[in-house]
Amino acid sequence: MMSTKTCRSETGDPLLLTPGPLTTSKSVKQAMVHDWGSRDPAFIELNRKVLVDIAALAGGDGLVAVPMQGSGTFAVEAMIGTFVPRDGKLLILINGAYGDRAVKIATRAGRAHVTLVTSEDTPPAPAELAKQLTDDPEITHVFAVHCETTSGILNPIADIADVVAKSGRRLLIDSMSAFGAVPIDAATVQFDALAASSNKCLEGVPGLGLVLCKETVLRDCGGNAHALSLDLADQFLALEKNGQYRFTPPTHVIAALSQAVAEHAEEGGVEGRHARYRANCDLLVEGMREMGFETLLPDDLQAPIIITFKMPRDPNFSFTTFYDALAARGFLIYPGKLTVAESFRIGCIGRLDHHDMAGALEAVRDVMADMHVTSGVAA
Amino acid sequence: MMSTKTCRSETGDPLLLTPGPLTTSKSVKQAMVHDWGSRDPAFIELNRKVLVDIAALAGGDGLVAVPMQGSGTFAVEAMIGTFVPRDGKLLILINGAYGDRAVKIATRAGRAHVTLVTSEDTPPAPAELAKQLTDDPEITHVFAVHCETTSGILNPIADIADVVAKSGRRLLIDSMSAFGAVPIDAATVQFDALAASSNKCLEGVPGLGLVLCKETVLRDCGGNAHALSLDLADQFLALEKNGQYRFTPPTHVIAALSQAVAEHAEEGGVEGRHARYRANCDLLVEGMREMGFETLLPDDLQAPIIITFKMPRDPNFSFTTFYDALAARGFLIYPGKLTVAESFRIGCIGRLDHHDMAGALEAVRDVMADMHVTSGVAA
Repeated sequence: MMSTKTCRSETGDPLLLTPGPLTTSKSVKQAMVHDWGSRDPAFIELNRKVLVDIAALAGGDGLVAVPMQGSGTFAVEAMIGTFVPRDGKLLILINGAYGDRAVKIATRAGRAHVTLVTSEDTPPAPAELAKQLTDDPEITHVFAVHCETTSGILNPIADIADVVAKSGRRLLIDSMSAFGAVPIDAATVQFDALAASSNKCLEGVPGLGLVLCKETVLRDCGGNAHALSLDLADQFLALEKNGQYRFTPPTHVIAALSQAVAEHAEEGGVEGRHARYRANCDLLVEGMREMGFETLLPDDLQAPIIITFKMPRDPNFSFTTFYDALAARGFLIYPGKLTVAESFRIGCIGRLDHHDMAGALEAVRDVMADMHVTSGVAA
Repeated sequence: MMSTKTCRSETGDPLLLTPGPLTTSKSVKQAMVHDWGSRDPAFIELNRKVLVDIAALAGGDGLVAVPMQGSGTFAVEAMIGTFVPRDGKLLILINGAYGDRAVKIATRAGRAHVTLVTSEDTPPAPAELAKQLTDDPEITHVFAVHCETTSGILNPIADIADVVAKSGRRLLIDSMSAFGAVPIDAATVQFDALAASSNKCLEGVPGLGLVLCKETVLRDCGGNAHALSLDLADQFLALEKNGQYRFTPPTHVIAALSQAVAEHAEEGGVEGRHARYRANCDLLVEGMREMGFETLLPDDLQAPIIITFKMPRDPNFSFTTFYDALAARGFLIYPGKLTVAESFRIGCIGRLDHHDMAGALEAVRDVMADMHVTSGVAA
């Protein structure tokens, strides 16, 4: 039996190699050890500033960041319900679970919708999208997932945006797992709204969704939303009026987000964060490949967010044992969510660096040896 | 100029004499200085236990506590959307802003509804409710607010529940600001669902709503909800399946809630918490009356949650000055929300005790003297 090294975060917790909730810095979490009055000027100013700073991460011009209590899915549902009018029709691009979820949302909200489905390891082809938009003039909006965390694939959002803009339709982006680390500039990528999260690449804690909205468009969306709580237009107007939320905001989560956004800037903004995640991703993929593991995706489709590895076929390999043994060493990984192949996922976002990635690889190596699995080869 | 004493919480923050977010204990906030994997067994067990403990606070038998990310209003909207079927009809009892909000929710969700409105200082009369239910056989559900924080009035929820049960209708309760401190027992008060919050009298931090549901009824509510995110039946089934949330939960908020529920039990549960709030309320009302302030409500209608005081008519009195001066002394109070009278509110819930109430009274006394207001008398 080899010695078991345990790796832990600054606060003694397992490292979260997942698509979220993620490992956050100690200082982000410590920002929550205060109480704030949600209608007090001190909190109003903290909240106002963090929203302005977040909108600026996507270029900012004409954009407003509208917060949505809940989670990323609450923000995505709010975005679809608020921006697609009741007589609109939504084309949903699907290559994973988050595209599928948008179908469920559109169904529940009573919005007409069609889909363009590709395999989980295949991005949508812009030409096919263009054809579908030409063939169906009733489509008013297109929904696309930026990084589909089901596989970790980076969808070609700029190409998609171009096609949508040229066809005169409106684009809604689910950028939940990419925003803050994968550059996007509203000046060149045209969209009406883009959904993001306090957690994920901004490295705050979970509890607040965010929707970056074209302000002029949002102002025309009053009354669209299928739920009062999820009405982004109403939320925006209330915040504009006096800086206060309509309904109690998660004050501690927002205080943490404020600290997280400051640390994001200190790291060099989107570019700096992207560089660290890219390095994490490269180290992880290289190390896992050395052990014989195969990634689902070729490198040019891989976002530096979360990596899907095919499950080894060695009969000695058990995912449950693998998960538990890595957890005992302080690394929480993620099961697969694919339909195309048995797989598991390892994330490389959150407050993690190359030391953590090296530790994770060492732990994988140990656990593979303990399980008497000689290679991660999938077939 | 008198000397300015400043009162602060354990973590150096102003004391929140509001209906929420509230002052919480340092230990509750410190429970957030850890990261949790939301699909890891350790978090699943923490979450499972806190929900069981919360259901037990209302008697527990046949009840399940279903969490709803967001805020209290998200939980109320989820409750109405999930429990009132699309062909149902809701009677909404209104004597304040939270009754009005239920009307907005029902409208947005497309649920037929009627109202029974009384003044903000007047509880609904059970006989009138009985008559309305007899006169309109289409009504399937009744919505009532337990403590209407607009005024601080305690509505006669047991009497309302009796009338609703006798008429064969179903009751939905918004107990947001009362649950955890005002006793309610599902064995004697019949309801299908009761909405509460992680914040408020449980003294966790904001970010999670809770709906205590009759499990047998909830199981028949699949597909009712007007929004995917707000579907309590779907949320319950997912948690039942593997203990995991459908969508990312606010892990830190839930860790804080777990600590808060433990501290609630240590204080003697609902009874113990009620006793402290009652003492806070009595001290506050007595002290304010000594200064000439008048409460909106007679004592027998006053819940020990938040107290509405009529605004003094002395021309030297300015609410903005009053608010700012109290804030400078470490006490955040709340503006009024009444339509019947100019008023302000002071809460007595959260991690506050008789020392804090005495400090608040002293601060009010000082500020009144500084403003040269000789009496709080309203008329």
